[in-house]
Amino acid sequence: MNKKIVIIGGTACGPKAAARARRCDQQAQITIVEQGENLSVATCGLPYYVSGVIDSRQELLTRGPDFFKEVMNIDVLTQTRALAIDRKARRVEILNLGTNRTSTIDYDKLVLATGSTPTVPDLKGKNLEGVFTLSKIEEAQAIRSLVSPRRIKKAVIIGAGLIGLEMAEALTSQRLEVSVVEALDRVLPALLDFESAAYLEKHLREKRVNLLLGQRVTGFEGDDKGWVDKVITEKAELETSLVLLAIGVQPNTGLAKDAGLEIGTTGGIAVNQHLQTSDPDIYAGGDCVENVNLVTGQKILAPLGSTANKHGRVIGTNVTGGDESFPGVLGTSIAKVFDYNVGRVGLSQWQAEKAGYDVVTSLVPGYEYATYYPNGKEIMVKLVAERANGKLLGGQVVGPGDTAKRIDVLATALSFGATVDDLANIDLAYAPPYNSALDPLHNAANVIRNKQSGYARALTPVEVENKLKSGDDFILLDVRSPGEWEAYRIEAHQSRLLPLRELRRKLDELPKDAEIVIFCQTSVRAYQAQRILDGAGFKDVKFMDGSIAAWPYELSTERKAPPPF
Amino acid sequence: MNKKIVIIGGTACGPKAAARARRCDQQAQITIVEQGENLSVATCGLPYYVSGVIDSRQELLTRGPDFFKEVMNIDVLTQTRALAIDRKARRVEILNLGTNRTSTIDYDKLVLATGSTPTVPDLKGKNLEGVFTLSKIEEAQAIRSLVSPRRIKKAVIIGAGLIGLEMAEALTSQRLEVSVVEALDRVLPALLDFESAAYLEKHLREKRVNLLLGQRVTGFEGDDKGWVDKVITEKAELETSLVLLAIGVQPNTGLAKDAGLEIGTTGGIAVNQHLQTSDPDIYAGGDCVENVNLVTGQKILAPLGSTANKHGRVIGTNVTGGDESFPGVLGTSIAKVFDYNVGRVGLSQWQAEKAGYDVVTSLVPGYEYATYYPNGKEIMVKLVAERANGKLLGGQVVGPGDTAKRIDVLATALSFGATVDDLANIDLAYAPPYNSALDPLHNAANVIRNKQSGYARALTPVEVENKLKSGDDFILLDVRSPGEWEAYRIEAHQSRLLPLRELRRKLDELPKDAEIVIFCQTSVRAYQAQRILDGAGFKDVKFMDGSIAAWPYELSTERKAPPPF
Repeated sequence: MNKKIVIIGGTACGPKAAARARRCDQQAQITIVEQGENLSVATCGLPYYVSGVIDSRQELLTRGPDFFKEVMNIDVLTQTRALAIDRKARRVEILNLGTNRTSTIDYDKLVLATGSTPTVPDLKGKNLEGVFTLSKIEEAQAIRSLVSPRRIKKAVIIGAGLIGLEMAEALTSQRLEVSVVEALDRVLPALLDFESAAYLEKHLREKRVNLLLGQRVTGFEGDDKGWVDKVITEKAELETSLVLLAIGVQPNTGLAKDAGLEIGTTGGIAVNQHLQTSDPDIYAGGDCVENVNLVTGQKILAPLGSTANKHGRVIGTNVTGGDESFPGVLGTSIAKVFDYNVGRVGLSQWQAEKAGYDVVTSLVPGYEYATYYPNGKEIMVKLVAERANGKLLGGQVVGPGDTAKRIDVLATALSFGATVDDLANIDLAYAPPYNSALDPLHNAANVIRNKQSGYARALTPVEVENKLKSGDDFILLDVRSPGEWEAYRIEAHQSRLLPLRELRRKLDELPKDAEIVIFCQTSVRAYQAQRILDGAGFKDVKFMDGSIAAWPYELSTERKAPPPF
Repeated sequence: MNKKIVIIGGTACGPKAAARARRCDQQAQITIVEQGENLSVATCGLPYYVSGVIDSRQELLTRGPDFFKEVMNIDVLTQTRALAIDRKARRVEILNLGTNRTSTIDYDKLVLATGSTPTVPDLKGKNLEGVFTLSKIEEAQAIRSLVSPRRIKKAVIIGAGLIGLEMAEALTSQRLEVSVVEALDRVLPALLDFESAAYLEKHLREKRVNLLLGQRVTGFEGDDKGWVDKVITEKAELETSLVLLAIGVQPNTGLAKDAGLEIGTTGGIAVNQHLQTSDPDIYAGGDCVENVNLVTGQKILAPLGSTANKHGRVIGTNVTGGDESFPGVLGTSIAKVFDYNVGRVGLSQWQAEKAGYDVVTSLVPGYEYATYYPNGKEIMVKLVAERANGKLLGGQVVGPGDTAKRIDVLATALSFGATVDDLANIDLAYAPPYNSALDPLHNAANVIRNKQSGYARALTPVEVENKLKSGDDFILLDVRSPGEWEAYRIEAHQSRLLPLRELRRKLDELPKDAEIVIFCQTSVRAYQAQRILDGAGFKDVKFMDGSIAAWPYELSTERKAPPPF
């Protein structure tokens, strides 16, 4: 008897599992059950379809049911919903949404690839016309048909996560005035720390995105035709003709729950490393399951197309008698947000601290290429490591330059439990059109090593701002050149200019016992200055991590001559 | 007494060691001895200075002696040559090239960062005017003053290594007719295997570079003014007004040898992992030392600015009483060659086989972005792994797309002894503007896993070409679409077209016992077809690694209708 494999869900994990199963077993009877019309939809491309970067929806529909049948001899039942699993009989009850008839399908091995559903908050007006989520091509089509012919002028996005920000770009590119409302105090709150987020927020504001941070949405109001026309937040009212709810997704676990399969504490279907559920004949993968976070060993939800595809291969192998494991994920994320490439991996500082780690961090501005190679763009690297042993816990790399490469290096390093010592000496590919002799990652690792060895001592920009705000008595020492000072500077009564090249000669002009916090443009000069003052017997000297490049607050740009020191 | 640290060599490792030493020890007396006029010259940027991409030589001279003195309190003796080391007296004899006076300088710790010198073959005419090497800014200046005002029309580059190919681009951009002569059978012979090199050679020929491979240069001829006007090879004579010798570099070890320090079998100064020479008070780093290859554990020469900078930090730490180690290198290399990004890391297949490894490889064409995201460019991934355990040994990634990212991931993976199983599941950052849900690296790792498990069986393009040439009786089965066949195809009497979508229906038309080698555009369809034929009881079916995308030989593009099968 040929093995009967039934796969529920046809977006990413499901078709991948089916195709892999076929390549491993030419005789198996393989069936995909999908409630939508389409198979293998590239849902990650939806924001680009809305923006028009991807012109035709056909480009997102790569493989139809015919292809699966002709090439892979896989039966695909579209517009078919799985209603219930009879585990004892090994049978799934299905409903044909076209004919409204139910039937059953037998399995030897069952695969749940039921995906996830956008979270819809229980708010007044959530069902108004013009209030969207974005997880299906039909939703993208509906949004596009509203915005592409320029019928409307304003849009409000609820949630500053990855999809929220990708859609902020997509809708802005369609010449809409876009507001983003986020309950937490920064964009990408689940992914970035404050400074990395603030660095991105500057760019979003440059692109005229109206950011409303730290405020919850309380409801939506509509016009007399039932179309949304207002978003109400705790602090504001926003006129709008379109609302996108982008506050996250929830795993689709109904079928699994009803069948008595174990659900994890995260809310995803519990699976072992073979992606087997609590029933050994039922596998599950993609957005509907929980994953192991390889840094903490804890379970997390990580709904991503890349993970779903990897799951699919593992499942395809295992349902045909093979033995493959999926190790886990790192929470790696990347998004193009206007001209910035925003990436992160592992734990952010707040996540690491919440998980109980004693951390040391670095915040290092750098360039994607060698500094002397033309048109190189900036990137901002933040690394988080365990203080005691230098073990990397995570990284954030944000900016207009090539951040994807650095994130992927960090993802690979984290997969192997790398320390900052390891990272500092990895033989990364070097030539001027690709990086500096020392990559920004090397520098960021070395800053942490310098902190560990006690050579470098730093405050974060947030810590410096707090000292300024509370009127602390300290010297905020700017060691940039007078020309840089004239162009822009941190205005504060604690602020003083003393260019690095004059520092050794003018040591006597600084009080040896004062608290001194040094900054420059990127902290290279500031660290140098800190070491000079250390060597000259100054007692309490630090520099500011990331310096002006990472400063999230206002800079004064009013032109004036630098003061004599 | 403050420690006296003397550093010989002021290009990369030397200044880095000095700066690090200063940051670790504010009291030490630090002196750099440099025979040239300039310090911290970005020699890796020289090809871009010749091409004009970098406009001013000042951009390559970032830090002068004044900077070192004022900011770091480091004494720099330029135009000063170290003549001899008296290890017993801990003293270096130096010659001021300006005054022609000798003197001595005492050290507690000495650092040799003497760099390397381009190899000049002992050929007739090597001293003619117009015959250059490229390792100094003065040489780049001299070449630029010849080519930039368009005084000459032709140039010949001897050696198709990294500098040779970077300069082929630089000189072509100055509208010269450029020939490259290489003794071995392919470009970048020390770095790439045949197929990767051939893929790059197609691009070089598109850019009108005249490649003369597999022939040695036997001499140069000059005109009556002593300027070179001809290059003679074993097979050709080339008129030219400029010759660039780019056949490699040799470590500068004279000082070390004369002082009785141990020299390794590679010809570089022998150092331990602390970068200490056989004299514990003398450290050495940069191009003049040998490194450990982290894949094989063997010693190799790896003259690169990135390695030199890492060495510098390790040495700066250690000469000031710290304890830091340098683990080794992976032979990672990258170069921009016209519109291609050419990277490699670890061992190539021939290097691995020469080192005694039983290898399994994959050759996988892919796209830098998601296939549906616009303007993505192709990359070609070759992976080399140990057959028995899947341990990665090396990789080559070449093409117009983003290869640097993939090389850096491989470098990181190789640093930790990764297997293809590890690589296949690394949580790399995914979004459509950056890659596909499965990165080309994941696919390339999976192809090797498929070969290991026996599912995939392949011949390389070279093996297929050899079978065609020797008139073997087999079927070269093209499973692309008729439209693709019309556009271009491999013309051979063994060639047959049977599109994948028709394959299951027309299985009877193929002889079950014949040897069948399948190809398509990228091998995705070919592998699928191989599994279909396997399942149908065909006895001897393989696919061609990399398919048409990797085919290094001629394709027929004469338009004709596909034959009925």
